[in-house]
Amino acid sequence: MYPKSLMELIERLKVLPGVGEKTAERYAFSIMEMNTDNAKAFAQTIMDVHNKIMYCKVCGNLSENEECEICKNTQRNHRQIFVVQSPKDVVAMEKTGEYQGTYHVLNGLISSSKGIMPDDLNIASLYERLPQAEEVILGTNITMDGETTAMYLDKVIKTKYPNILVTRIAHGLPSGGMLDYADEMTLAHALADRRKMNR
Amino acid sequence: MYPKSLMELIERLKVLPGVGEKTAERYAFSIMEMNTDNAKAFAQTIMDVHNKIMYCKVCGNLSENEECEICKNTQRNHRQIFVVQSPKDVVAMEKTGEYQGTYHVLNGLISSSKGIMPDDLNIASLYERLPQAEEVILGTNITMDGETTAMYLDKVIKTKYPNILVTRIAHGLPSGGMLDYADEMTLAHALADRRKMNR
Repeated sequence: MYPKSLMELIERLKVLPGVGEKTAERYAFSIMEMNTDNAKAFAQTIMDVHNKIMYCKVCGNLSENEECEICKNTQRNHRQIFVVQSPKDVVAMEKTGEYQGTYHVLNGLISSSKGIMPDDLNIASLYERLPQAEEVILGTNITMDGETTAMYLDKVIKTKYPNILVTRIAHGLPSGGMLDYADEMTLAHALADRRKMNR
Repeated sequence: MYPKSLMELIERLKVLPGVGEKTAERYAFSIMEMNTDNAKAFAQTIMDVHNKIMYCKVCGNLSENEECEICKNTQRNHRQIFVVQSPKDVVAMEKTGEYQGTYHVLNGLISSSKGIMPDDLNIASLYERLPQAEEVILGTNITMDGETTAMYLDKVIKTKYPNILVTRIAHGLPSGGMLDYADEMTLAHALADRRKMNR
């Protein structure tokens, strides 16, 4: 009922996560109403993302070069490796401005339910980096799969390189978190990992 | 922090209605994870929508030809014109399969608050069609602007062509609508426009 090209655009937009018919329709109209220069630039950017972006050969993060900006940066502490699930986690962490080491992006988590095994992740290149490492911070999510992955990596690293300090990001109440709204697991961890007050 | 092309795609996606940073990020990743053929087709479709779609010169609906499929269809009743605000309304109406006449798409509504005057709408081409019309159905939304537009068109048409039947779509309770949840305006109209039971 819509012209063919508009119907095709609606179908293609429905592939985006959480986008149904109505939303795809609204997006398609909004794209149709862009001026031609903006639409051209939009289409070009989609192609650019496909043609230019690759995985950093060192850490597995997204990059437009063989090596990403963080791995190339000699100001950062290359003896510290923060292991995360996805490039989004790197961006979230970088926004804090609190971390000066490097990252390693697994691009997934070990998951028995999804059948994802260690070999399916970007782990081999992590092992290559370990001889130069002093600390590996396991920054996978505090979820079933995140914990499994952290435990797996901890075991492997401790066996191969017992001198490397392996740490796990803290598990506790979030900023502004209220005790009576927190789930039991979070509260239990917040209690177990309590620390002495600084005076 | 993300590669340049990915950041640009996120920015461009934020232009879509209701899309913020997080959603744009999710969409961008989903586009990045498409295979290259699909991404290419997606980008191409955006360009197609811009290069191929125009307004039907008769009714103002979207079309890939000078005249849209409905206006070209000789099986339809060209003496009946259903006036709507947008091409989306045509699609919604066509889905019912209940209407065999033609449409006229205003591509907007008269709105004093937004400063939209009759001349800003696709109304001139409606007047050209009136000499051949028997009925004009005013199908603009049951909103302030929709009612204003309907009243305006009714007045103009009645003055110029007193023989044309001008009708307004019914205003009442929707299917499955419950009286105690309906707003007062809807209830008042549902009462005023009540009709005799068919036996």
